[in-house]
Amino acid sequence: MNMKKRVLFILILLMPVFFSQARVVTDSIQSKVLGATVKYNVWLPWGFERSTEGQYPVLYLLHGFTDTYSAWVEKGRVDEIADELLQTGEISPMIIIMPNAGGPDTRNVWNGYFDMDGWAYETFFFTEFIPAVEKKYHIVGDRQHRAVSGLSMGGGGSTVYSQRHPDMFSSCYAMSAWLNSESGEVDPANKASYVMKAVGDHAASAFVQNASDEVKAQLRTLRWFIDIGDDDFLFDQDIELYGAMRRARIPCELRVRNGGHTWEYWHTALRTSLPFASREFNK
Amino acid sequence: MNMKKRVLFILILLMPVFFSQARVVTDSIQSKVLGATVKYNVWLPWGFERSTEGQYPVLYLLHGFTDTYSAWVEKGRVDEIADELLQTGEISPMIIIMPNAGGPDTRNVWNGYFDMDGWAYETFFFTEFIPAVEKKYHIVGDRQHRAVSGLSMGGGGSTVYSQRHPDMFSSCYAMSAWLNSESGEVDPANKASYVMKAVGDHAASAFVQNASDEVKAQLRTLRWFIDIGDDDFLFDQDIELYGAMRRARIPCELRVRNGGHTWEYWHTALRTSLPFASREFNK
Amino acid sequence: MNMKKRVLFILILLMPVFFSQARVVTDSIQSKVLGATVKYNVWLPWGFERSTEGQYPVLYLLHGFTDTYSAWVEKGRVDEIADELLQTGEISPMIIIMPNAGGPDTRNVWNGYFDMDGWAYETFFFTEFIPAVEKKYHIVGDRQHRAVSGLSMGGGGSTVYSQRHPDMFSSCYAMSAWLNSESGEVDPANKASYVMKAVGDHAASAFVQNASDEVKAQLRTLRWFIDIGDDDFLFDQDIELYGAMRRARIPCELRVRNGGHTWEYWHTALRTSLPFASREFNK
Amino acid sequence: MNMKKRVLFILILLMPVFFSQARVVTDSIQSKVLGATVKYNVWLPWGFERSTEGQYPVLYLLHGFTDTYSAWVEKGRVDEIADELLQTGEISPMIIIMPNAGGPDTRNVWNGYFDMDGWAYETFFFTEFIPAVEKKYHIVGDRQHRAVSGLSMGGGGSTVYSQRHPDMFSSCYAMSAWLNSESGEVDPANKASYVMKAVGDHAASAFVQNASDEVKAQLRTLRWFIDIGDDDFLFDQDIELYGAMRRARIPCELRVRNGGHTWEYWHTALRTSLPFASREFNK
Repeated sequence: MNMKKRVLFILILLMPVFFSQARVVTDSIQSKVLGATVKYNVWLPWGFERSTEGQYPVLYLLHGFTDTYSAWVEKGRVDEIADELLQTGEISPMIIIMPNAGGPDTRNVWNGYFDMDGWAYETFFFTEFIPAVEKKYHIVGDRQHRAVSGLSMGGGGSTVYSQRHPDMFSSCYAMSAWLNSESGEVDPANKASYVMKAVGDHAASAFVQNASDEVKAQLRTLRWFIDIGDDDFLFDQDIELYGAMRRARIPCELRVRNGGHTWEYWHTALRTSLPFASREFNK
Repeated sequence: MNMKKRVLFILILLMPVFFSQARVVTDSIQSKVLGATVKYNVWLPWGFERSTEGQYPVLYLLHGFTDTYSAWVEKGRVDEIADELLQTGEISPMIIIMPNAGGPDTRNVWNGYFDMDGWAYETFFFTEFIPAVEKKYHIVGDRQHRAVSGLSMGGGGSTVYSQRHPDMFSSCYAMSAWLNSESGEVDPANKASYVMKAVGDHAASAFVQNASDEVKAQLRTLRWFIDIGDDDFLFDQDIELYGAMRRARIPCELRVRNGGHTWEYWHTALRTSLPFASREFNK
Repeated sequence: MNMKKRVLFILILLMPVFFSQARVVTDSIQSKVLGATVKYNVWLPWGFERSTEGQYPVLYLLHGFTDTYSAWVEKGRVDEIADELLQTGEISPMIIIMPNAGGPDTRNVWNGYFDMDGWAYETFFFTEFIPAVEKKYHIVGDRQHRAVSGLSMGGGGSTVYSQRHPDMFSSCYAMSAWLNSESGEVDPANKASYVMKAVGDHAASAFVQNASDEVKAQLRTLRWFIDIGDDDFLFDQDIELYGAMRRARIPCELRVRNGGHTWEYWHTALRTSLPFASREFNK
Repeated sequence: MNMKKRVLFILILLMPVFFSQARVVTDSIQSKVLGATVKYNVWLPWGFERSTEGQYPVLYLLHGFTDTYSAWVEKGRVDEIADELLQTGEISPMIIIMPNAGGPDTRNVWNGYFDMDGWAYETFFFTEFIPAVEKKYHIVGDRQHRAVSGLSMGGGGSTVYSQRHPDMFSSCYAMSAWLNSESGEVDPANKASYVMKAVGDHAASAFVQNASDEVKAQLRTLRWFIDIGDDDFLFDQDIELYGAMRRARIPCELRVRNGGHTWEYWHTALRTSLPFASREFNK
């Protein structure tokens, strides 16, 4: 091997270093509703730049309590899984959008996907965020080409968003979802108390149990998937929702795999979640 | 939920943040052979501290070209996979040792597992490193309870170590292994040229083809596994070794999975590699 | 290719036809307890004939309601899975014994693994069957090297046998287990009514809830695994048992995979069940 | 439980017996080209009867040497896998057609998918069979909604059909494919000699190597998948084709899984093959 060939070979060996996480863009939006700047990550499929407008489906991927918009890439490595699934064709080209709804300083920083006193995130999400990002990132923008998924607090957010806005998503994949909480008093000095209360106020099983026939009929128009580890401390909540869905005759997939409330669990969940969303986009 | 319960709940939600990578220890050894300090990571199973001496099997897990001892934890997340497999019983308690044999500045920093002019790593590994770490970390220290695995340059290292020291390991699992190189002249100003030459001088397929009946009989006493992505630029080398093994009637598993020379490939390879080593420990 | 080579090639192409199910033996035992001949299938690992006595571990694999001893081979193809897992080393050599406890004519033919009026199967199983087959088939014969698994009625049998005889098995893997029934009156003209009542009398969740601390401690000495499809009509029963196990702090794995009460579910369950049993044999 | 409930429960337990292989139809066609009646099996998705004409995509699934049209159902249990994948949405509704091209008496009964003296199967397949069945079974009938797959001799048939008719299929999935044979003299008294020669005359690697740039461009319009066991006696042939495809820059997936030339291998291959075909139908 001559020196030229050798240099080329070394460059190939170095490729994983240079090319990892190549197409994740960090962006932000100024929200009037929240009175704050909200950051978000966007995973773009190959060839995005050359695409024309309005052609991509979109998956909203929601992070958990104490995490931020960057968790799905930095800890969950969604870009590595998405690259692989796109290469084999298990997913079609899509945009994955990961908005911020939290932070580690839970006492002083807002966490949560619901409308709370001082943090109307759900209103922001549906009236400001979706319209803006779907325009900016060439997204089709109809229900069939929009899905939602998330882990823990984001699994709860995915579920409740799909329950309350069934006309907005074609599928919902909830991982290790935080679906209920014993509501208590809010403590103005502790923002975490607000999300605790909000989760309790949006208990997902109760929503299904109390749903009218009309609402149940709407819920049957989405595809649902619940994915929960057998050692997860939220196990009972997620099984309870599955039971409510079965009794209400709303088709729903359930998987219980090995594991607890861990990133390894959510990393591998992406291998099911992303193709699940993609298949509905293509119907 | 009262405030006490609520605090507890928040602590549980935060657990993945606090407990990740809990039992990886970074250690180092002063090598006379290399005239250098060599760092290494050690993954310890739960309850290690309470164990008596000499009871654990060991897997040596080798990193690739341009990487260091920390890559298997930081990029490969071996601790997360090992934790999960240990919890389900797919692996028994074992020690995983990840020594340093490289660095990103390949021109000025040594890379490689073989004896080269100025970097006698193989001599170091077998005469200094194994004896020292196996004493320090309560390792059984016999062949049956010792395995080797690695990726890329470390996959080549695993293979060649097992070929040249078949009495030292019960199994060898090579991932995306770099097994050959067209040997060229070494360039004293470029350390990478030494590893290129050394890999060519230790070509793994040629070793099998030229092996005497006695050596072939020794190679049949290990269990071998080759794991290579269908898009890997090293694909042909690995398939060539498998062909040589088949023709020499040395039992060897082969898997070609989807992917290239990527961390996602090696991360998932651990789900096969760790149980493969563990099963031999328990025979 | 000359004619000789061609004939050889055709023979190789025909191999799957000739060699399938090569090492399943159908045997029978004359039971005094039952007053009947009980048939059973035995899967033997390669090289069994050359083995000395008392060296193999054993897995008892129990069929479901309306099926017979032959179902695990004919419908479940356990021999194909076991061959493959043995070849890769995912299981060690073991004996799999599949006794008869049923038949399709459920009105006139006994079904069931429990002691009932006129069909004392549990007594037969532990006092006659295990001693006889473990002697005949070179089985080690201690607790560590004995496991039990089964599907539906056999999943219930596995669970209840392990609950009532925790000193006899090192692991229990229950697939789609039938674990409870609303006990009713037995109808002497309908043998199915006896098994219905017996299942209700041996309800597995109630056993755990009512267990003394001493019994719970014994149950913790086995490894437990529950495997149930998300569309199975027995889903709630199996989840109820898992909940009882968690609350009693008896370690237990749970998996909910896709599917209902089908042979495809049980066929793939063997890929987890057989290695699960084998790992305990090797500890 | 009263008697009515009890009977219902027993009926549910019996369901797998009654409902297995519910929607496989055996049909036949009178071929002028072959001068023979050719049987075939058809797997129909739920709700087929209510469908209007011309709406289903189709997968042609080809059996191996010495087998017949019934092998994919009886030995490969394609209906069980297809039911499961359809239920989860991993495949969309499609028709699977399994034509006869062989028999166990290989000396006196024709085997093979190619045109041979006295058995012009390829002509039959494209001029008689496809037009007739696609009309009869409500199939769309264009290239995008037509795929081909098969095992062993049928894996070779799939590959060669796709090479020679790239305008007819959107994807080709070859399992354990028989792709070459040292051509010898045909023996009129032994029909097997004709298929041996025909396979050699249609060697798949040579086709790729000798392909013009124009033909290579056509081959790039299909999606290709090669799936071969590491212990398969046809391993080298399949790897050789993959190498030829890579060098010709025709995108092709390769998987090497554990196993030999067995039904367990092909049964599990369907979990990849059917979704692979389905995804192209939906693009």
